Amino acid sequence: MAKVTGLDGIVAAETDISLVDGEQGHLIYRGYWAKDLAVSKEYEEAAYLLWFGELPDEARLESVRNSLQSKRELPDRIRKLLEALPATMPVMNVLQVATAAMSDDTPAWPPTIGQAVELTALLPTIVTYWHRKQLGLPAIEPDARLGHTANFLYMLTGERPNPAHVKALNAYLVLGMEHGMNASTFASRVVLSTQSDMASAVSAAIGAMKGPLHGGAPSEVIAMLDAIGSKDHAEAWIRGVLGRGEKLMGFGHRVYKTRDPRAEALREVTEALSGNDPWFDLAVQTEQIAVALLEEYKPGRRLYANVEFFAAAIMRAIALPTALFTPAFTVARVVGWTAHLLEQAEINRIFRPQSVYTGPQPEQQQR
Amino acid sequence: MAKVTGLDGIVAAETDISLVDGEQGHLIYRGYWAKDLAVSKEYEEAAYLLWFGELPDEARLESVRNSLQSKRELPDRIRKLLEALPATMPVMNVLQVATAAMSDDTPAWPPTIGQAVELTALLPTIVTYWHRKQLGLPAIEPDARLGHTANFLYMLTGERPNPAHVKALNAYLVLGMEHGMNASTFASRVVLSTQSDMASAVSAAIGAMKGPLHGGAPSEVIAMLDAIGSKDHAEAWIRGVLGRGEKLMGFGHRVYKTRDPRAEALREVTEALSGNDPWFDLAVQTEQIAVALLEEYKPGRRLYANVEFFAAAIMRAIALPTALFTPAFTVARVVGWTAHLLEQAEINRIFRPQSVYTGPQPEQQQR
Repeated sequence: MAKVTGLDGIVAAETDISLVDGEQGHLIYRGYWAKDLAVSKEYEEAAYLLWFGELPDEARLESVRNSLQSKRELPDRIRKLLEALPATMPVMNVLQVATAAMSDDTPAWPPTIGQAVELTALLPTIVTYWHRKQLGLPAIEPDARLGHTANFLYMLTGERPNPAHVKALNAYLVLGMEHGMNASTFASRVVLSTQSDMASAVSAAIGAMKGPLHGGAPSEVIAMLDAIGSKDHAEAWIRGVLGRGEKLMGFGHRVYKTRDPRAEALREVTEALSGNDPWFDLAVQTEQIAVALLEEYKPGRRLYANVEFFAAAIMRAIALPTALFTPAFTVARVVGWTAHLLEQAEINRIFRPQSVYTGPQPEQQQR
Repeated sequence: MAKVTGLDGIVAAETDISLVDGEQGHLIYRGYWAKDLAVSKEYEEAAYLLWFGELPDEARLESVRNSLQSKRELPDRIRKLLEALPATMPVMNVLQVATAAMSDDTPAWPPTIGQAVELTALLPTIVTYWHRKQLGLPAIEPDARLGHTANFLYMLTGERPNPAHVKALNAYLVLGMEHGMNASTFASRVVLSTQSDMASAVSAAIGAMKGPLHGGAPSEVIAMLDAIGSKDHAEAWIRGVLGRGEKLMGFGHRVYKTRDPRAEALREVTEALSGNDPWFDLAVQTEQIAVALLEEYKPGRRLYANVEFFAAAIMRAIALPTALFTPAFTVARVVGWTAHLLEQAEINRIFRPQSVYTGPQPEQQQR
């Protein structure tokens, strides 16, 4: 039977955007440690860095803030489209459909930073519009006084968000923005490589992001944190899991063989915010106990909390419904996708790998 | 600056579906010469072969005909969606949006042959619905007595199609169904590899197909045939082009270094149909003259008519507007995409190639 390689270990592109080094636990965005950016920079600063290759000065930051803020409202044609979709449609499908519809008949090539800003600005609006529509609630108009992250939370609930929640979600979004040549980023670059347009390529990336193998939805860790419930129960609960030989959710990662720098950053942020939300406290305590117990039960395996572990605590603290985990990841990753698409356009070459035919041969010579 | 490889020469997958051998001029679908299939089989037979790996017997052919025919009508949710889109949207965008919307919340994995049939059945309906909407004309309901190809033509015009036109378009569609690991097929397999669904993956493929580098739109050859106008003018016109050192459209191919088997098949079909349409006559005569003159002006280069050359004549004969060339190619290629997606699901492995970081290093060690 035919096989696929998954292109493991094959270099599909050089990129100036990010370095993912799982052996060393390194994640670098454009010459900066992603971990430091997550702790100290807001969404707009990190987005600027990924798009333009350098951190913005105050004037440039103000300008990118204004650009994003000015594009938050649903264009009429997208509002009309959303009204025509059945309310049962999952929000990831809605994002895929709506971004595809943003590919209009303006010149498609090359993709522009303006298109990147527009797509990035609009995703939180679509996510929150759709979520509230599914709940039968009216949409919340964006608030121009709020930054990208705070406004996302505001449009979800209609309430001024807790600053500790904004800070934690901001760190999560910055860390989710970019991660090398993952399947969704790769799919988007393949689509763009035919000189297709940026919105079409982002729509394809969302189609890939929807698949459960793409990861990013920490539902199982949430279930674990819910089951533990309070930090006093953590040790007994984790001993139960490890004693039964079961897998402890939220620990270990396919790529990172040492401490996941994204998890480290989120641990720093949640630690710093301890006392602001009981979920932050629970996560910090549970992680300490779990790492110690993993060393006791599986010595030498070096299992640490992964990004899903702390992401789960943050999602729980901000009360983000499970159905919005992958959409929130998308609100982050769209920055990386669009940065890659701008890069792909500069150096474009159509992706057209080989396949090896393993089917039957014709019985006769070709005439 | 960063570079992309385009993955030239890299094997992304084994496949039982097709062999493209440009050196030898071979195109094989599941053990059959595509050329023979195009001349002798109808759309439904070739689709069955690509999906199931063998040609259908009479009962199975009847069954796949019925399945396709029963899924031609627009589902209500897609009709509602199409009504909400602006009439200025190009039909390829509409196809991308509508297929993304067909990804609903039924179990997404694994993809099924039923989904492949549904997508394949629906594309001609969406293409013709949209084209007529743009012209301000009412949609034509599908005619259950007609095969896939004839019904496509019928829904375009509302008139019973000329059987010679059906036969020629059928050959074009069969030859367009499949062509190895091209960019759109590859993009769709990458999207599906996250265990995303078939409609999402087809939507991504359409996004890639839209790009002008994907090719398949023979507009320049059409312009040439229009300019030549009648076979008596062919020689003088072509001598003019070659004498001025200009490129003769419709001759030569990136992959096929010898005769393109798809062009050969279409030449056979148009030759056999000579007398049924003046465009067929013009194409057959022009090709003979052009091949002889190319040998005279560029001896040893072995330049032959490519598939676009005869495709242009067929498109002109059936009076397909230029804006519908790539959509017609999509109506063909959806069979190959869905066959590849069914194969990908059987042997799935997530596509996650490497990238090489060429950006700056951080100034300090990671804390």
